[in-house]
Amino acid sequence: MMTLLEGYIGIDTLTEQIRKKELKQGFEFNVMVVGTSGLGKSTLIDTLFKSKISRRVVNKEEYTCPKTVEIKSISHVIEEKGIRLKLTVTDTPGFGDHINNDNCWIPVTKYINEQYEKFLNEEISIKRSKRIPDTRVHCCIYFIAPTGHSLRPIDIEAMKRLVKVVNVIPVIAKADSLTIEERERFKRVIQDELKQHDIQVFPNVEHEDTDEDEAQENELLRSKMPFAVVGATNSYTVGGKTVLGRKTNFGLIEVENEKHCEFALLRNMIIRTHLQDLKDVTAQVHYESYRQRHLETIKNNPNHNSDGTVIDMVTPTPSPVGSFRSQKSSSSRSSPLASANSTPKMSNHNQANNNALSAQRKLQDQNANPVSQAKVKAAMLMQKNGGPRHVAESKI
Amino acid sequence: MMTLLEGYIGIDTLTEQIRKKELKQGFEFNVMVVGTSGLGKSTLIDTLFKSKISRRVVNKEEYTCPKTVEIKSISHVIEEKGIRLKLTVTDTPGFGDHINNDNCWIPVTKYINEQYEKFLNEEISIKRSKRIPDTRVHCCIYFIAPTGHSLRPIDIEAMKRLVKVVNVIPVIAKADSLTIEERERFKRVIQDELKQHDIQVFPNVEHEDTDEDEAQENELLRSKMPFAVVGATNSYTVGGKTVLGRKTNFGLIEVENEKHCEFALLRNMIIRTHLQDLKDVTAQVHYESYRQRHLETIKNNPNHNSDGTVIDMVTPTPSPVGSFRSQKSSSSRSSPLASANSTPKMSNHNQANNNALSAQRKLQDQNANPVSQAKVKAAMLMQKNGGPRHVAESKI
Repeated sequence: MMTLLEGYIGIDTLTEQIRKKELKQGFEFNVMVVGTSGLGKSTLIDTLFKSKISRRVVNKEEYTCPKTVEIKSISHVIEEKGIRLKLTVTDTPGFGDHINNDNCWIPVTKYINEQYEKFLNEEISIKRSKRIPDTRVHCCIYFIAPTGHSLRPIDIEAMKRLVKVVNVIPVIAKADSLTIEERERFKRVIQDELKQHDIQVFPNVEHEDTDEDEAQENELLRSKMPFAVVGATNSYTVGGKTVLGRKTNFGLIEVENEKHCEFALLRNMIIRTHLQDLKDVTAQVHYESYRQRHLETIKNNPNHNSDGTVIDMVTPTPSPVGSFRSQKSSSSRSSPLASANSTPKMSNHNQANNNALSAQRKLQDQNANPVSQAKVKAAMLMQKNGGPRHVAESKI
Repeated sequence: MMTLLEGYIGIDTLTEQIRKKELKQGFEFNVMVVGTSGLGKSTLIDTLFKSKISRRVVNKEEYTCPKTVEIKSISHVIEEKGIRLKLTVTDTPGFGDHINNDNCWIPVTKYINEQYEKFLNEEISIKRSKRIPDTRVHCCIYFIAPTGHSLRPIDIEAMKRLVKVVNVIPVIAKADSLTIEERERFKRVIQDELKQHDIQVFPNVEHEDTDEDEAQENELLRSKMPFAVVGATNSYTVGGKTVLGRKTNFGLIEVENEKHCEFALLRNMIIRTHLQDLKDVTAQVHYESYRQRHLETIKNNPNHNSDGTVIDMVTPTPSPVGSFRSQKSSSSRSSPLASANSTPKMSNHNQANNNALSAQRKLQDQNANPVSQAKVKAAMLMQKNGGPRHVAESKI
């Protein structure tokens, strides 16, 4: 029940107080692109953010496919109407490009999990930064080749793993090679296949709040996914207006024209409506799920620990959806307003607390910290696969 | 350096995306009032929030001073222009009201530290709520009697302890009993005394960001503190306008008129300009300082632990200012933009991490969890002082 106010006091200034602090602080957003080479990943990122974001192969003729899957990140600061965003794009060159692509998703999920691990290590250290730098991947755009037939086995196997650890947004790449009819048919086939393999892409119905409007909006988005997109960084003039597009002998495809392709739908979702949601789901579902698995693995398998971290990454683990559900039902107090009836009272969290402490103690007992475990396993993977390399650049 | 955009992409929608989520979630704010009885604490809170917030003594004649210091909380949900705030007011009846007031601040600092402890226990548990309920005290309004002479020893001793654990905002209570000249003289005396005893009230210059405008604004506020306030919940009509005030035979004091008293300055600071800052400093300075002391005490004094928690509360501990300073200088990357140059790279946080783990392990080794430690000590205090009781009510 609301307590009535007898006049204006000014709590409506609160969101502006927060906004002011946010603007000063700036934002961060980390996006990853996954898909075989030649699907226009770099062009799409440049089109999304209307700037030269991606690393470019200077001379196309010199381009050689990396011998293994690499993880390459690049950061930019972009600004629009006073809002600064540190954008980090992580590319995965070599993914799916080889004769044998067994386990080619491992370096990808490994990188994603390493970011959670870094965050967790910061979070549990005694002296913490005022704000933990967030390198967690908020969004993974998965590029599907416009075959018009069906998903390839590698798409299914890779996405199965990816959706457990990150928000996956699949797109039909280079959609200008499909007619509208082919596109719609292909889309239905992919939707069926995703359902069949229980691959829950973003926005995941299980992660939604109970907001009716939001649920409807997301349902509509899901019915149109995966978006059939075309990227372009060249401009043309059409009827006096400048448009981004791709021009061929038989016509001009305007990438931001919703009649031509679904790029605008993707851009609106990632940037204009769901950017903060991508970050929140990453923090509240995927990171929490990693943290919980990580601590529980250590707690339950004290003698089995040197593999603990990596089991999470290689074997499909219990879906974060499940754990999120139980979390959701047990935390009706997640809203401060829901708990307005329960007044401050010492509650007893000893059980959960002890579990965490005991898990962390075991971690300590074995003198095995998560980072070095990951390093050991990384070395093992290198021997097997030729080795993932993480190369990072900055254009700032 | 900024990367240039070649057109509008829409990241300026981000603050609105966040605002939308905040409005759905609602806000929480916890304020505490400390001071001897009869200084108008309840009236001031009701004036600040323009509603019947405080627990009222139904029949003034039946009122008896509690035998010891009690801690009483009450929660309300208030709303203004769509912004809902769960407000919890914690009162400390009995503080300073006895013949012997030795250590009367202990139940107060103990309550404040218990809220940090609850938060810490939630934060380190394996299964966490999506959002940890925040019962931490964001603001402690300390009521100084309008003697016109100087601070009393109890004010100095209590505030010395309080500023170590919470944002303290001192006010000169019932300022209508002082003339403007007396008020200004009294204020200068108090400012000198606070300085002399190194009592750093909110807004603490050490906790400020480097923002020039903000620093100037805070400097101005500090020069006017402690605000000389008058509370009132009755309305009168002055020149056709309805004003909150106190009417006596010789005149009407309008509490929101800055020429009459400084209530408006206090209200603007707590609600309209610094509410979020009070919350941020609580989380980033006081809570972090508690967490660090707590983990370090356990790490450094493994055989001394059953006293560890309480040492923090009774003995003036190393100032949070110091630890915040070092944190500040070591975390230039607290802004995501500052770290734009350093690309994601596995950094080694093992040292800090191991320290935290080792401290938590020791905590576990002794099979002593912080909550039960606090309970043991609470029992000890009860024997000594007659016992703090925490009584909570809700008006929702």
